Amino acid sequence: MLHEQVRTLAEGANFAALTTLMPDGQPQTHIMWVGCDEDHILINTEVHRRKFKNVEADPRVTVAIWDVDNAYSFVEIRGRVVETITGPAALDSINTLSRKYTGGDYKPEIQSERVILKIAPDRQVTR
Amino acid sequence: MLHEQVRTLAEGANFAALTTLMPDGQPQTHIMWVGCDEDHILINTEVHRRKFKNVEADPRVTVAIWDVDNAYSFVEIRGRVVETITGPAALDSINTLSRKYTGGDYKPEIQSERVILKIAPDRQVTR
Repeated sequence: MLHEQVRTLAEGANFAALTTLMPDGQPQTHIMWVGCDEDHILINTEVHRRKFKNVEADPRVTVAIWDVDNAYSFVEIRGRVVETITGPAALDSINTLSRKYTGGDYKPEIQSERVILKIAPDRQVTR
Repeated sequence: MLHEQVRTLAEGANFAALTTLMPDGQPQTHIMWVGCDEDHILINTEVHRRKFKNVEADPRVTVAIWDVDNAYSFVEIRGRVVETITGPAALDSINTLSRKYTGGDYKPEIQSERVILKIAPDRQVTR
């Protein structure tokens, strides 16, 4: 289950720092859109991205989400990618995210294939 | 040398996601104040913090800095903590950071000892 503050921040139009692990263990961090379901943090990326290759090799990720109006209010979720979903569900998901952040469907060209990363939390740090 | 966009974001009153590595390799991410000198990203923390223990054991860190007014403008710096500085210089540094972000000297109680993390970049990703 997601902590209430985690859910509130992930449901809002806030941003997340998603960190994956490079093959040598060095962290890789990108600022991303974020969402959630009942039990998971959801990130949508493309299958040709380094971050996706990283989680295929090592599913451990950490997500920090902050209030876009107050970065002092943030949560950290350490966890694992427990499922990846491509196909129509991933396209629906990127359009849902786009509507949350931009008010409209996703416009940029899709370079490879969209994929949802379902992240199960092992530790949730709130403040 | 820092990339120009990295320097601009680190010099402004923007926030950084600092990621260190836990003993088992899982990333730990906190949202932090950030600064820089000519060649390094500077982070100020305390010596009792998990993130400091992490960099003592493994100096590899990654810092993402975004424009506080536009999170789509961000940089990623993958690097290593090459020096740590405690004592008066670390107190000066936290007051300098505090003035940048709050307009005044650092007020919260210092629980252990302030320490500057000097981070040398190995890879700078800008967008």
